[in-house]
Amino acid sequence: MLESYAAGRWFRAADEGEPLRDATTGEEVARISSRGLDVTAMVQHARQTGGPALRALTFHERAAALKAVAKLLMAGKDEFYALSVRTGATTRDTAVDVDGGIGTLFSFAGKGTRELPNDTIVLDGAVERLGKGGTFVGQHIYTSRPGVAVQINAFNFPVWGMLEKLAPAFLAGLPTIVKPASQTAYLTELVVRRIIESGLLPEGSLQLIAGSAGSLLDELDLQDSVAFTGSAHTAGILRRHPNVIDGGVRLGVEADSLNCSILGPDVRADDPEFDLFIKGVVTEMTVKAGQKCTAIRRVIVPSQIAGQVEDALAARLAKITVGDPRDPEVRMGPLASVGQRDEVVKAVEALRAGSEIVIGSLEERGAFVNPLVLRAAPGAVEPHNVEPFGPVSTVLTYDGLNEAVTLAARGRGSLVASVATHDPEVARTVVLGLAPWHGRVLVLDRDDAKESTGHGSPLPMLVHGGPGRAGGGEELGGIRAVLHHLQRTAIQASPDLLTAVTGQWTTGAQQRAEDVHPFRKSLADLRIGDTIRSGTRVVSLADIDHFAEFTGDTFYAHTDPEAAARNPLFGGIVAHGYLVVSLAAGLFVEPSPGPVLANYGVDNLRFLTPVKAGDAIAVTLTVKQIKPRNSADYGEVRWDAVVTNQNGEAVATYDVLTLVAKTWES
Amino acid sequence: MLESYAAGRWFRAADEGEPLRDATTGEEVARISSRGLDVTAMVQHARQTGGPALRALTFHERAAALKAVAKLLMAGKDEFYALSVRTGATTRDTAVDVDGGIGTLFSFAGKGTRELPNDTIVLDGAVERLGKGGTFVGQHIYTSRPGVAVQINAFNFPVWGMLEKLAPAFLAGLPTIVKPASQTAYLTELVVRRIIESGLLPEGSLQLIAGSAGSLLDELDLQDSVAFTGSAHTAGILRRHPNVIDGGVRLGVEADSLNCSILGPDVRADDPEFDLFIKGVVTEMTVKAGQKCTAIRRVIVPSQIAGQVEDALAARLAKITVGDPRDPEVRMGPLASVGQRDEVVKAVEALRAGSEIVIGSLEERGAFVNPLVLRAAPGAVEPHNVEPFGPVSTVLTYDGLNEAVTLAARGRGSLVASVATHDPEVARTVVLGLAPWHGRVLVLDRDDAKESTGHGSPLPMLVHGGPGRAGGGEELGGIRAVLHHLQRTAIQASPDLLTAVTGQWTTGAQQRAEDVHPFRKSLADLRIGDTIRSGTRVVSLADIDHFAEFTGDTFYAHTDPEAAARNPLFGGIVAHGYLVVSLAAGLFVEPSPGPVLANYGVDNLRFLTPVKAGDAIAVTLTVKQIKPRNSADYGEVRWDAVVTNQNGEAVATYDVLTLVAKTWES
Repeated sequence: MLESYAAGRWFRAADEGEPLRDATTGEEVARISSRGLDVTAMVQHARQTGGPALRALTFHERAAALKAVAKLLMAGKDEFYALSVRTGATTRDTAVDVDGGIGTLFSFAGKGTRELPNDTIVLDGAVERLGKGGTFVGQHIYTSRPGVAVQINAFNFPVWGMLEKLAPAFLAGLPTIVKPASQTAYLTELVVRRIIESGLLPEGSLQLIAGSAGSLLDELDLQDSVAFTGSAHTAGILRRHPNVIDGGVRLGVEADSLNCSILGPDVRADDPEFDLFIKGVVTEMTVKAGQKCTAIRRVIVPSQIAGQVEDALAARLAKITVGDPRDPEVRMGPLASVGQRDEVVKAVEALRAGSEIVIGSLEERGAFVNPLVLRAAPGAVEPHNVEPFGPVSTVLTYDGLNEAVTLAARGRGSLVASVATHDPEVARTVVLGLAPWHGRVLVLDRDDAKESTGHGSPLPMLVHGGPGRAGGGEELGGIRAVLHHLQRTAIQASPDLLTAVTGQWTTGAQQRAEDVHPFRKSLADLRIGDTIRSGTRVVSLADIDHFAEFTGDTFYAHTDPEAAARNPLFGGIVAHGYLVVSLAAGLFVEPSPGPVLANYGVDNLRFLTPVKAGDAIAVTLTVKQIKPRNSADYGEVRWDAVVTNQNGEAVATYDVLTLVAKTWES
Repeated sequence: MLESYAAGRWFRAADEGEPLRDATTGEEVARISSRGLDVTAMVQHARQTGGPALRALTFHERAAALKAVAKLLMAGKDEFYALSVRTGATTRDTAVDVDGGIGTLFSFAGKGTRELPNDTIVLDGAVERLGKGGTFVGQHIYTSRPGVAVQINAFNFPVWGMLEKLAPAFLAGLPTIVKPASQTAYLTELVVRRIIESGLLPEGSLQLIAGSAGSLLDELDLQDSVAFTGSAHTAGILRRHPNVIDGGVRLGVEADSLNCSILGPDVRADDPEFDLFIKGVVTEMTVKAGQKCTAIRRVIVPSQIAGQVEDALAARLAKITVGDPRDPEVRMGPLASVGQRDEVVKAVEALRAGSEIVIGSLEERGAFVNPLVLRAAPGAVEPHNVEPFGPVSTVLTYDGLNEAVTLAARGRGSLVASVATHDPEVARTVVLGLAPWHGRVLVLDRDDAKESTGHGSPLPMLVHGGPGRAGGGEELGGIRAVLHHLQRTAIQASPDLLTAVTGQWTTGAQQRAEDVHPFRKSLADLRIGDTIRSGTRVVSLADIDHFAEFTGDTFYAHTDPEAAARNPLFGGIVAHGYLVVSLAAGLFVEPSPGPVLANYGVDNLRFLTPVKAGDAIAVTLTVKQIKPRNSADYGEVRWDAVVTNQNGEAVATYDVLTLVAKTWES
C-alpha cells in the first residue's frame, strides 16, 4: 500500500485501496488509497511550517538545497530505474523521466544561483522616475506568496513531472503538495520517500498525496496555486471550481495537444533534413510508446513528397521492436495500462473517419499497440481534434507555406511544433507563423542535428506550455517559472524609503561619503549608499592626442578638428569615451591591496555629454548592490558611477562590477 | 441615440433604446441600444482588416499612431470636459479621466519607441546555449496573436478606461473592440468618434459597441483576449463562459477591491506624515465621489492615535462642498446615478452591523451621498468584505505592525495599499508584508509628498491590478502590458537559422568579413553578421605602466608585482580592463569620417581572462542588431565585440553601441 506524506508523517489508508498493475505483465505492483487522509491538515502544515521555513532561506540557499537533492537522486537512481520498468518504460524512456527530472533540478539550482539574488525578493525592471524632481520613484518587485503550490501530475513521467514543478515552486518559496496520477504513483512515492528521508528539504516544504486529492481544492485561496498536467477534460473541471472562479486560486494547465512537425518545401529526399525529419517523427512516436504530451501527432509534408515520407517512415518503423521493456532488444514498451490501450484504439477509430491507415495495424495484445501511421484525406478534421495518446501519427499534405502554417494552426494551440528546413526564408516564415500558436518551436537542420535534443523534449531553460488546447499555461523557462509563482508589485516611494524596501541603492537616496575609502571596506563592512566623490581632472587636448596615439584609436572626432566640427553630434574634437572612463577609474581607485579583488565588468555604460579639451571631470561612485556568494569568501558589489563635468552635467553613467572579499585584515 | 462603430461604419439601432441620465439633474443625455448589431461581422472585420493592417506596422509605427491620437485628443479636450460634467464629474474628476487617459497614450507612445524594437517581434531574455558545441541554441520571442482584444470597461472612467486598455493592445498589434459601461458611454462614444474621424488608426483596429455586447464572447477563440474592469459578479459570469473555460480565450480581470491605507506606528499627530495621510484619505474618498476601484475603503491606524485621526478627517471633510459639479466651488459631485446611490446606502447598512458611523450621515438627495466615515468594532468582518462604491471609508485600529499587515490581508487581495511612514524599518516591514496581497504599494512621506501622484492613481508605467478579490489581472506597467498581449515562444535552432528568424545576430552564426570595413557602410548597406577581424597588438609591461601613470589608475594589480602575485584571481601584474578595451577600439576603429557617427555606450562588458604583459590581443566586431529610427536620419547599431588573446581565449566580451547614418556619400 502506497503511503502519503502528510503533515510531517507517512500516512497509510486503512482500506484495501485500488490495485496498480505492471504495464507489461498485469501483475499488481502496489495498492493505492488516500481514504482518511486529512488534506486540511496538509494545507495547514504547508502554510504554517513549510512555507515560513522555506521563505526564511534566500534564493541561493533554496538553490543549494535543490542541488543537494539532485545529487542524492542521481546517486540512487538505479532503484528508480528498476521500479520504472513496471510502468512499461524502456531504459531509454526511463532516462527521459529520471535523468531528465534530475537534470531539471540541477538546472534550476544553477539558474537560481546565477540569475537570482542571494535575497528573498527579486527586482523587476528599472527604477521609474515618477516626478521631475526625482523625489518620487517606482520599482517593481517580486515577493513570495504565503501560500501553497499544489501540483497534479500525469501518469507518463512520474519523476520528471514531479521535479519540474517542484523545482521552481521551491525556489519561489512555496511549499509543495504533489499529487501524482495513481497509475504510476509508486515511482513518485519512492522518489519522495528518498527526499524526505534525506532531510535535505525543510519539513513541510514537500508533501505527497497517494490517491485521490479529495477536497484539497476546497482548502485553497488566493495565495495558492494549482499546476495541472493532464487531460483537457480534467482541466475543465478544475477551471470550474469555485475557488478558481471566485476565490483567486491561480491555475496553470498543461494539457495534451496535437503537436505537428513540418517538412520544409526546400527539403528533397536526399537532403540531410529529410532523414532528420523522419527520425524525429519515429522517435516521437515510439518514446514512451507515444504517451507524451509533446509527441508528434500531425506530420505535415509537401504533397509531392508525401509518398517518399511514408515509405521512409515505414522503413524506419519496421526496425522498432515492440515488447517487454526488460528485454534490451526492445525499442518500445506497452502503454501504461489496458485502459490506455482502449483509449488509443477508440481514438484511431475516430481518426479513420477522414484518414486511412497506411503503416501498421491494430492488433489486440494486452497493453501493447504497434506504431500506426494514417494518411489524412484533404480537408479531414479529425487529425486536428482527436488525440491518440499512443504511437500514432497522421500524415497531412500541403501546397505552399501558408497552407502548412494554416494546417498547424488548426490544432488550436499546441505545446510544440518542429520544422525541418535548411532555408533561412522558410525558417523565418514558418517559425513566425507558428509562434502565436505554440509554446516552443524547433527548427531542425544539418547544423543543429547533432546537438538537438529533439522535438519532444521540454528543456528546463525553455518555456513548456502552449495556448488554447495545450492549456494556456507556461512551465519551466528557467527563472520565468519561478517568477510565475511570485507576486509582482509596483512600489512607489521616495528614493530613501525605496532603498530601505529593496536593499538596493536608488538614485536620489542618501549617499554616505566617509573618511575611509569604501575600497578599504570588506563585504561585511560595506553598506548600501557608501560613496566616494573624487577630485577633478582636467582633460587636455594633449591627453586626447596622446590617448589616440597610444591606443591607436585615431577616429577623426578625436584627431581631426575640421572633420570633427562637421560631426552632427560633437561639433569639434571630443575625448574618447574610453579615455573618460579610464581617467574616472584613476580618480576613484584606491591603489593599495585591500578587500576589492577585481573589477570584473561594466554594465550600461552610456556617454551622455561629449567631453572637450579643457573640461574638468569628476566621478561619484556609490555602493548600489551587495551580493555575498554562499560558496566563496567574496561577493559581488555593484557600484553606481556618474562622471560629471565642471557644469555638473553627467558625461557618463555606468555600473562598475567588483569582487570584494568578505573580510579583510589590513 | 448613441451609435456603435462596427465593421467600418457607424451603426444606429432601430429601437428606442434605454435613456442615459445626467447624474446631477436626471435629464436624459442620450439613449443607448445595440439591438441588431452584428458582432460576428465586427469580430471578422477586426480579424481580417484591422489585425493585418496593424501587424504590418512596426512597434515604432504603432507608437507614432498612438502619439498622433494623443495630440488630437489633447487639442480637442474642451469638448470632452463639457460632456463629462453630465456624468457627475467635477473638473478635477474629469482631469483624472481625460488628461489621465491622454497621458497614458503619450506614455505608451514614448515607451513603445524607446523600449520596443522598430520591428514586429520582441526578443525575451538571453540566447540559451542548449549544447556544448554551440550549434543548438534557444531564444524566447514574443509575437503578435492573430486575434482580437475585447475591452469591457466600467462607468467611472469612460475615457481613461478605454485608452489605458487600447494603448497596449494597439502596440501589441491586436485590434480592439471596446464596450464601455452604458451609464457613461456617451463620453466614450464621442472620443471614439473623434479618433475614427481623424483616420489616424488603421481601419478595423478600433471598433465600439454602444449597448449590450450580445453574443460577442461566443465569437472568440484562443487568439483573442477579454480585458474586463468591473464587478466581481460580472467577472464570475465571464470566467464561466465556455470559450474561457474550454476555448482558450484569455481573460484579464480588474475588479473593485477593499484597498487600505496604513498610518505607520512611528507617525505622531504633529509629523508631516500625519497630515499627508489624512489628506490622502480625504482625497480618495471624494475624487469621483469615491467611485474609484482604487479608493481607500479601509483606514488602518494605531489604536492610540485613532481619535486624533478621526478628528482630523472630520475637520478636513467639513471643507468638502458637495453639489452640482458645474459649480466651481463644489469639490464633490453626485454618484453616477440614483441606482448607484442605492447601492452605496445598502453597503453602508451592511457595514453598520459591525461598525458605527463617526463622521457624516446618510441623507436622501437624488444621486448625492455625503462623505461618511465609520469606525469598526474590534473583529468586525464587514469592512473586509463589503465595498461601498462611494465616499465611504472605515477606520480600523491595530497594535503592532503584524496586526496592521494581517488586517490589510483580510481584504483578500487589493489593487493598492498605501502606508504613511518616515521610518525605513517600518517601510520595509509593511511593504514586504503587503506586497503579496497587492498590485501596487505607495509609501508616503515628507520626501516624496510634493511629487507623489497619490494612492488612487494608476500610472501607465506601473502595473495596475491585484490578486484575489482585485481580479488577478495585470494592466499597464509600461511594456509589461504589451507583452501580456503577445505570445511567448521558445525557439530552438542552429545559430544561423535563429539569426534568420529573429533578425539579430547570434553567437555561432555566419560572420562576413569583407574587404570594405563595416564602419564605411551606412545603415542602408550594413547587414547583420558583417564583421571585422582586427590585427593583433602585444600588450607590454611598459604599456601597463604607462597607462597606470597616465590615467592615475595605479591599482596594485597593475603596478606592484609582489602584491599582484598575492591577488587570488590574478597571480601577477595584469593589464587594466580599461586598457584592454581602449586598445581593442584602436584595433577595430576606422579613423576617417564615415557613416559611424558616435559610440554612445557599451553594454555587458565582462573581463573573462586576465591579460598579462606579453599577451597579444585581437578583437572581432560583428553587427548584431540594426535599429533604424523613424524620426532621425540615423539609427542604432549594436556590435558584438570579443577580445581574444594569443591562445584564442576570450579575454573580454561586450556590446559596442554606435549611431550610424542611414545613408552616406563618401
